Amino acid sequence: METAERRQILKQSLVAAAARTIERRGLAALKARELAEAVGCAVGAIYNVVEDLDDLVLAVNSRTLASLEGALTAAGEPEKGRASRGSDAAIGQLVRLSIAYLDFAAAHRSLWRAVFEHRLPRRLPEWYLEEQMRLFGYIEEPLRMLLPGTPKGRRALLARTLFSAVHGIVTLGLEEKLHAIPPDALREQVTFVVSSIGRGMLRRA
Amino acid sequence: METAERRQILKQSLVAAAARTIERRGLAALKARELAEAVGCAVGAIYNVVEDLDDLVLAVNSRTLASLEGALTAAGEPEKGRASRGSDAAIGQLVRLSIAYLDFAAAHRSLWRAVFEHRLPRRLPEWYLEEQMRLFGYIEEPLRMLLPGTPKGRRALLARTLFSAVHGIVTLGLEEKLHAIPPDALREQVTFVVSSIGRGMLRRA
Repeated sequence: METAERRQILKQSLVAAAARTIERRGLAALKARELAEAVGCAVGAIYNVVEDLDDLVLAVNSRTLASLEGALTAAGEPEKGRASRGSDAAIGQLVRLSIAYLDFAAAHRSLWRAVFEHRLPRRLPEWYLEEQMRLFGYIEEPLRMLLPGTPKGRRALLARTLFSAVHGIVTLGLEEKLHAIPPDALREQVTFVVSSIGRGMLRRA
Repeated sequence: METAERRQILKQSLVAAAARTIERRGLAALKARELAEAVGCAVGAIYNVVEDLDDLVLAVNSRTLASLEGALTAAGEPEKGRASRGSDAAIGQLVRLSIAYLDFAAAHRSLWRAVFEHRLPRRLPEWYLEEQMRLFGYIEEPLRMLLPGTPKGRRALLARTLFSAVHGIVTLGLEEKLHAIPPDALREQVTFVVSSIGRGMLRRA
């Protein structure tokens, strides 16, 4: 095998091992020595294929975002068999995206938490920022229908704000600290708040 | 001085010193040895007045909640000199509470973050939970006007959900990770989303 190919395979194994550790024991449990043992390489070999462990976490988080995107794509499609008005359809789409986000977070708590907990000691690379931005695009689509004529920059900011609101509900709702909210009640709350936002936007617009 | 009084004074000094450390360097920087040095006592003396450092953090967080409550009380009062309809007044009140929360978080970032970061290795004490619940009461008041006839339990859950939504917007908005949003734009976003929720609730009700 070529060296480049071997490095690529080692990197993939390390990313998979890091994802398993984060999934089972959380971001803080990630240690170079254990990763090296898990993939059967020397500790030093890790730093031949990545700059540091943060690089591995970025790669894991990128996989998590890709898997979230899969869930959002399914949820973002227009409902079949129901002909609803444009604005109702857009509100329904926002609600489905939010519920998909909630379900994803509940099903992959540790991996999902790592996306937000991880602090890169340098600027996030452009490719990673672009992946995040692409996800906001899913929210911008129904917003385009609810708030026609809103400039692109403002719509992008609003998509991010709506995401943050749903993220807050999901995070604090799943958290045990303040009594966790039962899953069905949490879904109902997300639905009520997101559809209220949608209707309220229309009322202003 | 009586022993009880001396212990009380030492505890107050320790809470004040812990608050200063958290404010300047964050929760993770809290160390028993440094606290003892700051107040001029032996390290062991700390554990005569509190069970552990977590007890001190709870006391600091309780002070932070009290200071947040002061900000919310001021914001929650009905606007003077403007006779608005009941529902408009309630929406205005929700928006002012949200903005007060945003401004508080922006002005006291480290202390505010500690309230959410701190994980007590045992159940939160009842007195602390009651302080948190009392704060949700500020949100329940305008909800009573916007959603009359909603059962108390549901209104309480909804107050918590609305709080979580605003908390999410504030947290991710102040965070530098994903490009921080400039303060004025963040205020405008909070105002738009919270007033949309309020109008959307009315539309359903």
